[in-house]
Amino acid sequence: MVGVITLTTDFANRDGYAGIMKGVILGIDPAARIVDLAHDLDPGDIDSAAFVLNSATRFFPPGTVHVAVVDPGVGSSRQALAVRVEDFFCVAPDNGVLKWIFARGSKMRVHRLTEKSYFLPSLSSTFHGRDLFAPAAAYLSSGVAIEKLGPEFSDYHCPDVPAPCRRAGRLTGEVIYVDRFGNLVSNLGAEPGIRQVQISGRVIECVSTCYSDAEPGHILALIGSHGLLEIALRDGSAAQYLGAGIGDPVYALLSENGSDR
Amino acid sequence: MVGVITLTTDFANRDGYAGIMKGVILGIDPAARIVDLAHDLDPGDIDSAAFVLNSATRFFPPGTVHVAVVDPGVGSSRQALAVRVEDFFCVAPDNGVLKWIFARGSKMRVHRLTEKSYFLPSLSSTFHGRDLFAPAAAYLSSGVAIEKLGPEFSDYHCPDVPAPCRRAGRLTGEVIYVDRFGNLVSNLGAEPGIRQVQISGRVIECVSTCYSDAEPGHILALIGSHGLLEIALRDGSAAQYLGAGIGDPVYALLSENGSDR
Amino acid sequence: MVGVITLTTDFANRDGYAGIMKGVILGIDPAARIVDLAHDLDPGDIDSAAFVLNSATRFFPPGTVHVAVVDPGVGSSRQALAVRVEDFFCVAPDNGVLKWIFARGSKMRVHRLTEKSYFLPSLSSTFHGRDLFAPAAAYLSSGVAIEKLGPEFSDYHCPDVPAPCRRAGRLTGEVIYVDRFGNLVSNLGAEPGIRQVQISGRVIECVSTCYSDAEPGHILALIGSHGLLEIALRDGSAAQYLGAGIGDPVYALLSENGSDR
Repeated sequence: MVGVITLTTDFANRDGYAGIMKGVILGIDPAARIVDLAHDLDPGDIDSAAFVLNSATRFFPPGTVHVAVVDPGVGSSRQALAVRVEDFFCVAPDNGVLKWIFARGSKMRVHRLTEKSYFLPSLSSTFHGRDLFAPAAAYLSSGVAIEKLGPEFSDYHCPDVPAPCRRAGRLTGEVIYVDRFGNLVSNLGAEPGIRQVQISGRVIECVSTCYSDAEPGHILALIGSHGLLEIALRDGSAAQYLGAGIGDPVYALLSENGSDR
Repeated sequence: MVGVITLTTDFANRDGYAGIMKGVILGIDPAARIVDLAHDLDPGDIDSAAFVLNSATRFFPPGTVHVAVVDPGVGSSRQALAVRVEDFFCVAPDNGVLKWIFARGSKMRVHRLTEKSYFLPSLSSTFHGRDLFAPAAAYLSSGVAIEKLGPEFSDYHCPDVPAPCRRAGRLTGEVIYVDRFGNLVSNLGAEPGIRQVQISGRVIECVSTCYSDAEPGHILALIGSHGLLEIALRDGSAAQYLGAGIGDPVYALLSENGSDR
Repeated sequence: MVGVITLTTDFANRDGYAGIMKGVILGIDPAARIVDLAHDLDPGDIDSAAFVLNSATRFFPPGTVHVAVVDPGVGSSRQALAVRVEDFFCVAPDNGVLKWIFARGSKMRVHRLTEKSYFLPSLSSTFHGRDLFAPAAAYLSSGVAIEKLGPEFSDYHCPDVPAPCRRAGRLTGEVIYVDRFGNLVSNLGAEPGIRQVQISGRVIECVSTCYSDAEPGHILALIGSHGLLEIALRDGSAAQYLGAGIGDPVYALLSENGSDR
């Protein structure tokens, strides 16, 4: 088994914060393979971190430990969690960053990180990524059982995630993520029979297969790599072009022989 | 042998796309050493990716697999390639990103990536970095023969690269890359006897040895780390200062006992 | 022992420069574990690099080699150094980037990197990170003794670091680092009995425990993860909000039963 640990943070690549977490991990589990999932999230952007983390898990080997540290409430009363889900682990503050993981409805075990012998010797109240989450991930990755890290916990923070709604041949969803290309990722899935997509007052007359199906400078809709309906601009940013962002509604009209079940 | 795999993409470090490629690689070749070559290329900037990739290969151990995914045509009819060159491999879309590699004139074997058993089980039409290039790289790195990945292919896309021209004691070249310091890298080599460099109507009276040869705020020319003539600004960005960029002409005047062969 | 090598540079993540250093390292020490500490430092920002490097060392395993390449004077007469400090190594140009390391007052051995058999075969005058520092780090990490790399050296560049000053119940310090969150890190330590902090004409009436102790949009002071007094803005950038930066004075008033020793 490879002990893979991924990091998702808003630490960027300038202050050494993510690197320090790696130093801590390698001090505990020298064999760990550490993968940067995201570090350039906007400061405190828990929602985007939640989406990125959830979108990545199925592409990692079994046993991978995913650490998410977007943690403006560090040092407050918010809990620190380790979660066993399906065949992987998450280690993160209890602030909603795991909401898409929790929304999977998978069987999972949630533990609070309370056992001080698995912290760094001195726990700051400003950098739990270093003092608490990195060690927890390294111990999990090196085979320590999750229940050693602290007691089971059921009262974790589990914010609703936006669910699409279907009525009279129309799906209503919303933008749940905007990527670096400016692609607007919605919460609408790969539904058969979508004949038209609407966003920001714009009508897109079909669902394309790939980004280059549209002419340069034109808007298109397609099922993106997340398996979700995505609005893109050929050779540009749909988010900028449409002035659209997270939370904006997206409508998909279904063809009559579509699945208005 | 170390199985080294490098990644050159326009994925930045926010959406998890490069990290997901690493997850896929480690699932196939757990021993692979993965190196980030570039992720902050401008979206779709194939030309810069081509330069960066080509400039790096000679500093990696034999057998290294270089993956380049700047791929606005993903999912279209463009081919996906694996190339054996000298002592290394490249894996990339057939969109020009390998143009500097091809321009070396080295003996090489080019294969199309068509063998589905070396893809991820489900191939999207929007993220071949994940579904196709990362697996191909991991299989190559773990010792699978290139011919297993698909048939040999000779009709690959091979755009011309700008070649310098020599006439009457003058070399004419152009800027082919601009780095993060704003250094303007030309396609003129380390020619003996250059006595003057011209760019953007500016005259630089000598070729310096190092960046600090010029006074702060002054323009200089030197043979940079790529072995190419480079125009730089001491403690600043020559690109910004001169308003110059890729494609702009660069002239080098040779001294009379210079090599006007 | 794990052979860990960290990299601190102003190379960003676009030109392949940091990746090339990793290629060189893996060619010499295939087992090295390479950690990115910082690559998005502003071009030539030696001061910030010095702070980041020094803040990270105690979180890495013994024997770690820390490479810092913020090197505007590359190719000039500035020396190249390898330093043995406590249980780790630093490899860097002699330009002040090690000033906080030197200021520790630890017992250390400083050597110049002069032994050409430990360089890449061809030494450029523009990229010593690749040709000189990466090889030196890889050789140190793989067990080569520091004295093999060149002679001991005592005349290294050792700029003063700002020291806090204590008078009449008041500590005067200054901002020595600004992180990506806009937190203003001062050179004042975790002093007991601070009852008020002043910066940029603003008065902060207490020292908080964590960032979320303040209301959103409010300024606070706390002992940050570096063990230093830090001025932060809840959910924002204190640097931007106060228009403050490196070198700006920070005052801490001590309570009467505080430690005005």
